[in-house]
Amino acid sequence: MSVRSPTETEQVSRDRVAEREAQDRRLKASMDKIKQKIVVLSGKGGVGKSTVTANLAVALASQDHAGRVGVLDADITGPTIPKMLGVRRLRLDVGERGMLPARGPLGIRVVSMDFLLPSDETPVIWRGPLKSMAIRQFLSEVLWGDLDFLLVDLPPGTGDEALTVMQSIPNIAGVVIVTIPSEVSQLVVKKAVTFTGQLKAPVLGIVENMSGFVCPKCGTETSIFTTGGGQKIAEEMGVPFLGKIPLDPRICEDSDTGTPFIVQHSDSPSAVAFREIVAKIMKTIEGKEAGMLTQEHATSRRDD
Amino acid sequence: MSVRSPTETEQVSRDRVAEREAQDRRLKASMDKIKQKIVVLSGKGGVGKSTVTANLAVALASQDHAGRVGVLDADITGPTIPKMLGVRRLRLDVGERGMLPARGPLGIRVVSMDFLLPSDETPVIWRGPLKSMAIRQFLSEVLWGDLDFLLVDLPPGTGDEALTVMQSIPNIAGVVIVTIPSEVSQLVVKKAVTFTGQLKAPVLGIVENMSGFVCPKCGTETSIFTTGGGQKIAEEMGVPFLGKIPLDPRICEDSDTGTPFIVQHSDSPSAVAFREIVAKIMKTIEGKEAGMLTQEHATSRRDD
Repeated sequence: MSVRSPTETEQVSRDRVAEREAQDRRLKASMDKIKQKIVVLSGKGGVGKSTVTANLAVALASQDHAGRVGVLDADITGPTIPKMLGVRRLRLDVGERGMLPARGPLGIRVVSMDFLLPSDETPVIWRGPLKSMAIRQFLSEVLWGDLDFLLVDLPPGTGDEALTVMQSIPNIAGVVIVTIPSEVSQLVVKKAVTFTGQLKAPVLGIVENMSGFVCPKCGTETSIFTTGGGQKIAEEMGVPFLGKIPLDPRICEDSDTGTPFIVQHSDSPSAVAFREIVAKIMKTIEGKEAGMLTQEHATSRRDD
Repeated sequence: MSVRSPTETEQVSRDRVAEREAQDRRLKASMDKIKQKIVVLSGKGGVGKSTVTANLAVALASQDHAGRVGVLDADITGPTIPKMLGVRRLRLDVGERGMLPARGPLGIRVVSMDFLLPSDETPVIWRGPLKSMAIRQFLSEVLWGDLDFLLVDLPPGTGDEALTVMQSIPNIAGVVIVTIPSEVSQLVVKKAVTFTGQLKAPVLGIVENMSGFVCPKCGTETSIFTTGGGQKIAEEMGVPFLGKIPLDPRICEDSDTGTPFIVQHSDSPSAVAFREIVAKIMKTIEGKEAGMLTQEHATSRRDD
């Protein structure tokens, strides 16, 4: 039997498959070193998803996980995480074995498209496949190291970036869904809850951000974006409600200066609300871990 | 010379090219019937882009253009225009010659992915190429008819949807860029300005939305998302500044009930600011038309 040598087209196609498989292995090896992978999703833009991610990272790092928290800014066309964590103008170092994340406050490791752009004005005019490729590279070629937590900040919507993140990262601990209370926002966030379910990831819960504003002069509370929308969706969709974060101008100022508000204004009602949300997320994750351990224990006992 | 008949693969490929060219012709014919095509873009999400689009449509329709204004909601994964214009639960009618837009207030013709989804919870889990295909179909297969204005509301970012809209629509009159005043937002909006320039479309100007909040009880103004960011970008990037719209809880309420605030609360400072912005946009467009006419006139005179 004669063995036909592959044509050039066949060889290119085989090489591509082999490269993709090698990247899959690197991605899995890299992600296996990280204990908990948490995705922050919203559906609608401008609801404070990146603010929640940045503050969650700082909260975790300040609770016995310093130097063991990473943040992947998966918003390729509109990256804002570096600004919020005060690590702008940094560059990713490329070493022999791969790219090294930038180091933020409390040793938080940050990777963002922002680090690869020559200036603020430079747009990333990329269609979906290219954005997905960038995210897969950030997951597979970056030396994240041994981490307790990786937080992934997604851009709005349920398109390429969200799909790639959800399909590429193995064993996602859960998805935090952020919304503002308005009805218009609820419409889009419901889609995000269904999306998460369809991709078989657990919903850690819904955060209602920008919930009510207290006038700093007279103390009157105004529901600028209405109120209660997050809780309503959580009830309707049967997922946990994590809490409300009041609208506070200091949150925006802190994001602009790159000093997360739970550090900078740790006594503010928003910071107090945020810490309660973090505690709920931790409880769920630890509960799941305990559950898994019990299950493993039970399985190993049955095997005896 | 013998003529080789095409292989099956070659035939499929030829058919695809022919179909694409036929769609291009339909798209051009459809767009040529619309006098002014305006794109509303932001870069960052949640800055009120759809609110601006919906209110701009109503403002134009109420100024001698009733029944001659269309809105394309190009946010495929997070459509909110139908909710804001009070035309939810409608369906697109498919006639013999194509799809018919839904009819909103003042005869505004609306096309949105929302009309094609079975429920609010249904996510559109589509990668870029599919989203682009949907937008091209909305532009080419919908019987928009003879319109004075088509407003295109883009999702956040400079990815597939934005690229497809900017590359598919011929003779875009201009792009309105919406931002909130924060520095974090400015970072992303600068990219949107560069994006527009790279795609050779004129920037009509920048709108600063959610600019300052006046306490309804004591009248104290608080800059919740800081202030002046829109004007700053406009100056830095050398594009027109269209104006500031103050944050007003009634805008959010009106969006939720589907009654645009410039109608529902026409005396509010936000509505007054908005009407000034519309006037500036109209002046620029009419100035360009006059400029073009003068130029044509000059050209035809030179040709004499």
